[in-house]
Amino acid sequence: MPIDDTHDPALESWVESANDPTGDFPIQNLPFGRFREAGDEDWRIGVAIGDQVLDLRAAGLVRSHDMTSVMRLEPAARRELRQALSKGLAKGSDTPSRWRDALVPMARVRMGLPCRIGDYTDFYVGIHHATAVGRLFRPDNPLLPNYKWVPIGYHGRASTVNVSGQPFVRPSGQIKGPNDERPRLAPSQRLDIELEVGIFIGRGNAQGQPIAIDEAEDHVFGLALFNDWSARDIQTWEYQPLGPFLSKSFASTVSPWIVTLEALAPFRRPFTRPAGDPEPLPYLDSPQLRKSGALDVQLEVWLQTEAMRKAGLAGERISVSNFAEAAYWTVGQLVTHHTVNGCALDSGDLFGSGTLSGPQPQQAGSLLELTEGGKRPIALSNGEQRTFLHDGDRVRLSAHCQRSGFRRIGFGVCEATVLPAGTPPPRDDAQAVPP
Amino acid sequence: MPIDDTHDPALESWVESANDPTGDFPIQNLPFGRFREAGDEDWRIGVAIGDQVLDLRAAGLVRSHDMTSVMRLEPAARRELRQALSKGLAKGSDTPSRWRDALVPMARVRMGLPCRIGDYTDFYVGIHHATAVGRLFRPDNPLLPNYKWVPIGYHGRASTVNVSGQPFVRPSGQIKGPNDERPRLAPSQRLDIELEVGIFIGRGNAQGQPIAIDEAEDHVFGLALFNDWSARDIQTWEYQPLGPFLSKSFASTVSPWIVTLEALAPFRRPFTRPAGDPEPLPYLDSPQLRKSGALDVQLEVWLQTEAMRKAGLAGERISVSNFAEAAYWTVGQLVTHHTVNGCALDSGDLFGSGTLSGPQPQQAGSLLELTEGGKRPIALSNGEQRTFLHDGDRVRLSAHCQRSGFRRIGFGVCEATVLPAGTPPPRDDAQAVPP
Repeated sequence: MPIDDTHDPALESWVESANDPTGDFPIQNLPFGRFREAGDEDWRIGVAIGDQVLDLRAAGLVRSHDMTSVMRLEPAARRELRQALSKGLAKGSDTPSRWRDALVPMARVRMGLPCRIGDYTDFYVGIHHATAVGRLFRPDNPLLPNYKWVPIGYHGRASTVNVSGQPFVRPSGQIKGPNDERPRLAPSQRLDIELEVGIFIGRGNAQGQPIAIDEAEDHVFGLALFNDWSARDIQTWEYQPLGPFLSKSFASTVSPWIVTLEALAPFRRPFTRPAGDPEPLPYLDSPQLRKSGALDVQLEVWLQTEAMRKAGLAGERISVSNFAEAAYWTVGQLVTHHTVNGCALDSGDLFGSGTLSGPQPQQAGSLLELTEGGKRPIALSNGEQRTFLHDGDRVRLSAHCQRSGFRRIGFGVCEATVLPAGTPPPRDDAQAVPP
Repeated sequence: MPIDDTHDPALESWVESANDPTGDFPIQNLPFGRFREAGDEDWRIGVAIGDQVLDLRAAGLVRSHDMTSVMRLEPAARRELRQALSKGLAKGSDTPSRWRDALVPMARVRMGLPCRIGDYTDFYVGIHHATAVGRLFRPDNPLLPNYKWVPIGYHGRASTVNVSGQPFVRPSGQIKGPNDERPRLAPSQRLDIELEVGIFIGRGNAQGQPIAIDEAEDHVFGLALFNDWSARDIQTWEYQPLGPFLSKSFASTVSPWIVTLEALAPFRRPFTRPAGDPEPLPYLDSPQLRKSGALDVQLEVWLQTEAMRKAGLAGERISVSNFAEAAYWTVGQLVTHHTVNGCALDSGDLFGSGTLSGPQPQQAGSLLELTEGGKRPIALSNGEQRTFLHDGDRVRLSAHCQRSGFRRIGFGVCEATVLPAGTPPPRDDAQAVPP
């Protein structure tokens, strides 16, 4: 993934709002998403530029509204599309006149899921998270012997991946406290967040045909933010021996914009392992990976309680982390490992990275860690406390990349609000259109 | 689900092959599947009758080739469609003339997956299997404390569910023997079968809206056979703490015909629990369920090695089991449990039951159990032995329901052949058409 002209920090757009140096969507970003305006029957494919969305079909850049066909492009064709977008949106360029008509203000659109998600897989690459949570569930054995060899993952529920903004109902499930004689059905009292990066697959592979590590990133379309909401009390009782199920499948939330690997090119870092840790097995190792396999993405978690909202207060930042520092495995390794057995990936498949907690306690990506298993509530600045989420709490994830000599690249936000157990979910417009 | 006129054992069809009392597809069955003839671009919806397939669109019974729209029908409309099929295919009835032209010989069609599968979930309802396998993985603790309370399940990989007849490549993965210092990448040497029933969801539910136990079966379209191929050596090393992943996701195989719950109405049995076992929690219990929640389906596993095939020998039956005897939970309980947290099911979703081993060792639904963890090979009648599957082995599952006073209902077969590791998979026609 070369750092090409499209990253030139001097490049400005004729869409003036894109030139704000603190904005998420400068001309160096160009993330993909699906949107519609009031009255639209179908999702349309858009690229974010400042506070506007460029309708790719109206601009003559794609022929259909099918995002999957864009995700499926060969790497060269993808780069070509990016070059065309960069050129056409640049200040002083010879922009086709229809592009101006193809701009829609973000304030007027509703964003949908970026694509139809076929299969969703959740990984567990956050080694600090795995260690901290392992300690709570298995004090004597926090990090299992396979962790440093196998990029641990499991299949998740695709049907309940929501787009940012869609509230969800607090789940009920079987819960059994350590001193309870038997389980009971009850609303979860230990509803948690998981700060993750979402990875969208571009080109797939045929069943039976693994993807080699050197080709792995060619199959990745880009990244988004992902919150894998988790009901810890349901999880504790159900998860043995086959892993998490209903404790996760009630809802997860993804941000609407896919930031492409091309946009992230300047923010690569070497992939390193702590001294003494095993080298990856050869199928998960390569010189290119070691040189630049990791991605330096700053991550934040914000909480706004209902009381804050009523008092007109913005949310409060409760954690800051970083993808490269938190992750024990890289995006490319996940793709190769997932397919080494011949498993078929398809365009639009989604990976969650797993919870990306940093090495320090205040960098934790879940309340489970931030509160030491619910034992030490965190104090909020308005006087409230939290161990786990209350009804009405709104959690927002955000992310950006920053590096001297380059323009800031933002991810937009990934946020949702907890509705009380048993609430009939509001009929969200985002769901009214078939995926 | 009433035992109505469509089950009258005296009912015969003008399709003469359907009147063979040993056949799978009498007029009392009427299972749904998708097929195509040479040259077809799309899958077509068919109903099996004897050795023929009735093309539902050509017969004027449905408007499109979209199976999901049939699966989504309200229960009353589904029963109406069944009544119409039963009436129109009955001997001596006033059959619309176009129905005769809508018949295609099975020998001339290729069957596809019965529908596009959105999400696939694998359960673990076989208590004899869970006990036997638990003993191998955790000798001191075979059945975990949650087993008799929670219908244990986990998400599976939808993209690699194959239709019967499609071969698959032996998977490679990380394997670490108990005495190995470190894992290595290698083809699985402990490739196994899992005898399961597949459950296809008809109508779905909205996210956040659980399905009550009394309505659960209204959301089930029907059953099929399912083989959840498993690489035990990969599984042993990867499955902690989040469950099976690559040990299962390389391939699973489903039979092409969905036998509807209406067709299975005469084969219901009371749902019972061994004395001393806990009662299901109220959300998983109902008088109707206790009266007739279980389904009496006979299951068989057949193995044909490559040597048998070369010698012109048919396969050999290696196990016989029964859904009602093997399952600790019913189909309705699985639907209700899956949605109790608000998880959304969609038309075409697939559940695997989990391995349906009977109480006797020779009724085991996996080689892991039949060979006591690979320690005692099974002897085949041609002199060969097996612990786990060899390349070229072909496994066939079959099933039928039988009850005095009723016609035999068959499921067809679910079969696939193991190709050597690294084989480029043959370009199967069944994959050439988009799902």
